Amino acid sequence: MPIIFLESKDNPKIKHLRGLIEQNTYRKKQGQTVLEGTHLCLAWLQEQKKINAIFTTELALQHPDLEEIQRLYHGSIFILSESLYKDLSTLGTTLACLAIIDLPSSSQALQYNLDTLILESIQDPGNVGTLLRSAAAAGVQQIITTKGTASLWSPRVLRAGMGAHFSLDIYENVELEQVLPQFKIPVYVTSSHRSTSLYAQDLTRACVWIMGNEGQGASDYALAHAQAVAIPQPGGQESLNVAIAGSVCLFEMVRQRI
Amino acid sequence: MPIIFLESKDNPKIKHLRGLIEQNTYRKKQGQTVLEGTHLCLAWLQEQKKINAIFTTELALQHPDLEEIQRLYHGSIFILSESLYKDLSTLGTTLACLAIIDLPSSSQALQYNLDTLILESIQDPGNVGTLLRSAAAAGVQQIITTKGTASLWSPRVLRAGMGAHFSLDIYENVELEQVLPQFKIPVYVTSSHRSTSLYAQDLTRACVWIMGNEGQGASDYALAHAQAVAIPQPGGQESLNVAIAGSVCLFEMVRQRI
Repeated sequence: MPIIFLESKDNPKIKHLRGLIEQNTYRKKQGQTVLEGTHLCLAWLQEQKKINAIFTTELALQHPDLEEIQRLYHGSIFILSESLYKDLSTLGTTLACLAIIDLPSSSQALQYNLDTLILESIQDPGNVGTLLRSAAAAGVQQIITTKGTASLWSPRVLRAGMGAHFSLDIYENVELEQVLPQFKIPVYVTSSHRSTSLYAQDLTRACVWIMGNEGQGASDYALAHAQAVAIPQPGGQESLNVAIAGSVCLFEMVRQRI
Repeated sequence: MPIIFLESKDNPKIKHLRGLIEQNTYRKKQGQTVLEGTHLCLAWLQEQKKINAIFTTELALQHPDLEEIQRLYHGSIFILSESLYKDLSTLGTTLACLAIIDLPSSSQALQYNLDTLILESIQDPGNVGTLLRSAAAAGVQQIITTKGTASLWSPRVLRAGMGAHFSLDIYENVELEQVLPQFKIPVYVTSSHRSTSLYAQDLTRACVWIMGNEGQGASDYALAHAQAVAIPQPGGQESLNVAIAGSVCLFEMVRQRI
């Protein structure tokens, strides 16, 4: 495959890559995003999906995972200087490659009788990606996000998701008011107010989970239209990290269904 | 209280602050660390603990939380320019203040019959802090870390811990070989190999949890001296984030003890 050296940060390909990494609006306009690291790239290729271009460094090119990638990817590989690469990657040179892919389109219609995780204005990319990873592990297939939630296809969320994105049905920028009334299954929201214990719920049938914003928690609309549950905290902390709270709920569901 | 404007990045107080934020060795040598954000500072002050100095910006000084802090803290407040503050803080200007505190010393002797969480070479500060927060919420009082684990008193771990540190008994840089044989209670380690289900364990009595490195998992020594348990993952993912896995284990313990 062609190996091409790029040296200038003003090269159009580099500018394009930087735009995709840094700007949500540019990603949407171009219909593309960036996978960081060989783990994500391999997970993507193993789903028979296409990479448009790979960017790496001369040193990283020797990494066994990049050799594995080159068995599955036959397009161009662009070699950057260490400093240019470090400047572009959100994690510096820790991850061995950056790959441009087309944004997947969700073709499936939302199903109102399946286990679903709703992320309501969750802002931290790490929390969002981790929740996707936990949902995929717990066997929850549908993910809905509202407007204020971090863009699921940003490089940081993709990285925290560790490939979970690729097996999920994802619906972004959904209005809660549009979908919540249509679900015919129980809807739960985590909240420390007016709640019953998570462990008192029967979670053996399909259900919907709403996880709210890190600071404010769930919206009034969500609280009014869902059963509020709380995770008992004998240590008396005021709250858990939202990715933790969500995962504890999802795995309590797994436990009850074994 | 005295309000002092500092403008130069070469001011000795700024150099000292930067050293504490960026260098683990400097923190140890000085016996101090830095709390970022008003939430952590208030949690610290509410435990009747002392802040040595507060750094903020003119704009952030108007923040209601900083006014609350000034009711409890009567030492010097140093005002930095926005750009200098942004350059120092690991989160830019998102958090309204930086506070220097003395590193707490753990005076208690380790108890070998109490619930304990052991972090074995966990490297990501976010994971470490989140696990401390979950442990505190789950009522686990003792935390042990091995050498490769991120320094618990670094600003990033403190921030992810959201104040959990202040109520825990913490033992850092412990050799697993020194402590594991002394525990008289069950010791569990999460692992996807040679494991039984988490949900098949009786967790009603005190126990020890070992969480291993993000990439490599637990050490051979840990696996040889603990009962390996796995979290069932019907979605078939290869692994959960370590902070999630640890928290799911700790809250399964909470559930069984209710």
